[in-house]
Amino acid sequence: MKISDLGEFGLIGRIQKLVPRKSSSTLIGIGDDAAAVKISASHTLLITTDALLEGVHFDLSYTDFFSLGWKSASVNLSDIAAMGGVPRYCLTALGIPAGISVEQVTEFYRGFNALLKRHATELVGGDTCFSRRGLVISVTALGEGDPSRIVTRAGARPGDRLFVTGALGESAAGMELLESGVRSHESGVGSKKLRSAIRDPQSAIEKLIARHLRPVPRVEWGRKLALSGCVSAMIDLSDGLSSDLAHICEQSRVGADIIADRIPLSPALRRMSGTLARPLLRYALSGGEDYELLFTVSPAKVKKLCSLKLPVTEIGSITSGETVSLVDPQGGKKPLSPSGYEHFRKGGRPLRHIK
Amino acid sequence: MKISDLGEFGLIGRIQKLVPRKSSSTLIGIGDDAAAVKISASHTLLITTDALLEGVHFDLSYTDFFSLGWKSASVNLSDIAAMGGVPRYCLTALGIPAGISVEQVTEFYRGFNALLKRHATELVGGDTCFSRRGLVISVTALGEGDPSRIVTRAGARPGDRLFVTGALGESAAGMELLESGVRSHESGVGSKKLRSAIRDPQSAIEKLIARHLRPVPRVEWGRKLALSGCVSAMIDLSDGLSSDLAHICEQSRVGADIIADRIPLSPALRRMSGTLARPLLRYALSGGEDYELLFTVSPAKVKKLCSLKLPVTEIGSITSGETVSLVDPQGGKKPLSPSGYEHFRKGGRPLRHIK
Repeated sequence: MKISDLGEFGLIGRIQKLVPRKSSSTLIGIGDDAAAVKISASHTLLITTDALLEGVHFDLSYTDFFSLGWKSASVNLSDIAAMGGVPRYCLTALGIPAGISVEQVTEFYRGFNALLKRHATELVGGDTCFSRRGLVISVTALGEGDPSRIVTRAGARPGDRLFVTGALGESAAGMELLESGVRSHESGVGSKKLRSAIRDPQSAIEKLIARHLRPVPRVEWGRKLALSGCVSAMIDLSDGLSSDLAHICEQSRVGADIIADRIPLSPALRRMSGTLARPLLRYALSGGEDYELLFTVSPAKVKKLCSLKLPVTEIGSITSGETVSLVDPQGGKKPLSPSGYEHFRKGGRPLRHIK
Repeated sequence: MKISDLGEFGLIGRIQKLVPRKSSSTLIGIGDDAAAVKISASHTLLITTDALLEGVHFDLSYTDFFSLGWKSASVNLSDIAAMGGVPRYCLTALGIPAGISVEQVTEFYRGFNALLKRHATELVGGDTCFSRRGLVISVTALGEGDPSRIVTRAGARPGDRLFVTGALGESAAGMELLESGVRSHESGVGSKKLRSAIRDPQSAIEKLIARHLRPVPRVEWGRKLALSGCVSAMIDLSDGLSSDLAHICEQSRVGADIIADRIPLSPALRRMSGTLARPLLRYALSGGEDYELLFTVSPAKVKKLCSLKLPVTEIGSITSGETVSLVDPQGGKKPLSPSGYEHFRKGGRPLRHIK
């Protein structure tokens, strides 16, 4: 059977079935942002691994090595954040093709360590090998979680309110700008405006691009949300709102209504409205790589959530049933299918694959 | 600067220097078989990650997916064994190119889990993504170690005796047979004898090939050696005896004499002497991937080591100074430079690269 017939998440489901019943010390196994294992009565370890492959997750024609190191660390710490954990240690496995210099590898680790330093996380080991086929990066992050405060994707209940941190869509818009800039540059036309905007740190373009190249994991917010006890389910937005919400709904066996008008789009994204190729909402719903947190809160705990004073926006609510719907400004409701990034997917054309 | 000017271990040294001073909870950072971090007063976690890349670490023209899964788990558990730890959990990151079927991925995980089951280790998570450039496997293994019994590469002292478990060179010989078989098959000549030998489970060829495709990590032996308190330094033989001994010597700041005649070569390897392209000792010294354990024991503890009744062979001793020498049967002594596998290495032509 072709993997594209199953898709990424169908394949993960198959792999999950191949694993024998989990042991009593494994609190959370395959299928969440991170695994959780009980090391002792008082210590729970969160573990996650994410690979970044050249030509799939990044493009060296517009990604510098410092940013690549930063982002590789960031996407892994974001998974620890989504469980409400505190990242502690990282390991890297790097497959390096011919043509990459010592200086580039050094820049990668400078960026990697710069992100780790912000979160008091330490690089403790790894593997370095030759690759015949492009740059391969695999990162493992380990974190600590308070066993009673770990937040999974599976706890959402009908009636829960749906929240998101920060603003969405910036990363996907930034990638589109980078790709169009690269293509214009390659064809020798019209990228001058883009390139001068990139050099202007105040510009909306620069902001969107920085958001794509150097995302910031919401470690402190995730930790505060988990410790507050407000949050019933949580995930980080790596694939796109529509897809990541679908993961919460599948694992919690619920549905959801999202109010389109409430999805937070940043001023920078709005300013680029005329330049970008698609309606702004599309970047938030299908774009992915925002690394914001999507989470649910029972109505009784919304007041407590507000007292945390985090930059969160309520964007909808959890429903019974299995349908995820988008409610438009006119009150019309239509089913929202997962349109974010999914590896191996046939058709569907996730944003990242549109060239 | 080109990475080949530094080599794999020079590059690792550079990366090590980029990492800020390790925290007090990090007992062992970059540069040993696994990292060790103190989780609580009584719990030390061992962590290791190893990537296996198509075209570098394995060749799908002669490696089946069950064996590939098995070996991917094995090489990581071997690193935990070399620290004297007990493996507990694994994570996999898989980059899968077009053309790989669901059945092949399933076979990979069957092999992976079969090896884990032998060591009561659990697959708890991972990442599955599309790869544009060949199959990418990255595995992380976590284990537990008794803080006072963790064995590093750095504890060897002059006068210590040098031991190795099992027999060496089988894996490299197995790989040579597989590669010559593939090449004969590709050119349409002469592999009939090889292929029929592969099907005969009693044959020496089959034994060598199995050793290459499905190595067995010496988890129980490593654990017993560490718990006995006999062992001053230990490493698993992944790159080849000459290279792995050099790691112990570098990190312990000592030299070593190996007695060529004492290096244990298996009956299967000896039986293939006429068929193999190189002198048998070369497979042991430069071949790698035996995943046996190389370790040092102070003279006062050799008796205790013997009482463990493990299949170990004394092959030499640790000396002061920095020279590693090979003592030939006539008593002649010559410097032994690391000739095992090293990624990025210029010249030197490690065995695995000879086509």
